[in-house]
Amino acid sequence: MNNTHSTHKNQPLLLLIDLQKAIDHPDWGERNNLDAEENIATLLAHWRNNDLPIIHIKHTSVEPDSHYRPHQEGHDFKAVAQPETHEEVIEKHTNSAFINTPLEQILRARNIEDVVIIGVITNNSVEATARMSGNLGFNTTVVSDATFTFGKKDYSGKWHDAQQIHDISLSNMAGEYAQIMSTKELLSSMD
Amino acid sequence: MNNTHSTHKNQPLLLLIDLQKAIDHPDWGERNNLDAEENIATLLAHWRNNDLPIIHIKHTSVEPDSHYRPHQEGHDFKAVAQPETHEEVIEKHTNSAFINTPLEQILRARNIEDVVIIGVITNNSVEATARMSGNLGFNTTVVSDATFTFGKKDYSGKWHDAQQIHDISLSNMAGEYAQIMSTKELLSSMD
Repeated sequence: MNNTHSTHKNQPLLLLIDLQKAIDHPDWGERNNLDAEENIATLLAHWRNNDLPIIHIKHTSVEPDSHYRPHQEGHDFKAVAQPETHEEVIEKHTNSAFINTPLEQILRARNIEDVVIIGVITNNSVEATARMSGNLGFNTTVVSDATFTFGKKDYSGKWHDAQQIHDISLSNMAGEYAQIMSTKELLSSMD
Repeated sequence: MNNTHSTHKNQPLLLLIDLQKAIDHPDWGERNNLDAEENIATLLAHWRNNDLPIIHIKHTSVEPDSHYRPHQEGHDFKAVAQPETHEEVIEKHTNSAFINTPLEQILRARNIEDVVIIGVITNNSVEATARMSGNLGFNTTVVSDATFTFGKKDYSGKWHDAQQIHDISLSNMAGEYAQIMSTKELLSSMD
């Protein structure tokens, strides 16, 4: 291809979802996977050291009460996921990173087949993006310990804790849309 | 609009997902919402009696072991959701009814703003379709008692029953992607 953005075929792309300071706001309540940041840092370092493709998704909310609204600190990237100058950042305004963004077009242009998804939150933007990634035909992996979520009440008022919501979200994706791997399993498979 | 397919603005569209005989196969295990078929019949009759738009999504699996593969009985519509001759049927090959189908284009051409989703299964094709519908900007409703699902083990081996998976799936959608209403609530709101 005569495309300056093209990379070698079959290079897995690391897609970081919504890793902004907003997610550290105490409003969210108790989260699971407290070591997610450590795993995110490990994966990002591996991708950078091996010169593999990376795209950062930045959520810019249009909801006036969202911690992800622009022009305030919550919109900034978390330190652990701060993009380097040459790394691509794609802004999104809804949950899935594929809706109203150039993400699919960029992946196709670069011959990306394998997409590795990390970030937040498991059952919302991560799951929405992973479901679309799988359905669009990308070989999609979600890293189980490099994403996290929060407990919440369901519509009938029953409480579900963060780990339970996380586990069911990963089970929704597993097999149908994505493969689920830990950071350690993923890195071993790439050796 | 000079489009023979256009309907009046703001007519809610009923989208029936994957209501084929395949879903009655005993392989799936124990389901929840045993009265879903009754509610589906009620909703379909209401839409037909009021001459409101209806689209049937028919899943045609490319998986050789799927009960939804073509050219066998499981691929046929369930009696309760049998399309009438003039009603549109859209075939899909993956989970979301919006991927590689003309669904979005048809909804835009007909000025459809409100999409009401029923069918199977809650946490798979219904949720994948509802997430995309909401993210694409359609005012989306999922009818809680006109969809159902099955229990399953999560990736760590822990069992979650059908009602729990159903409830968490609806909670994933609620507020973010869709509003959740019962058949009774929905019909009351349309009076």
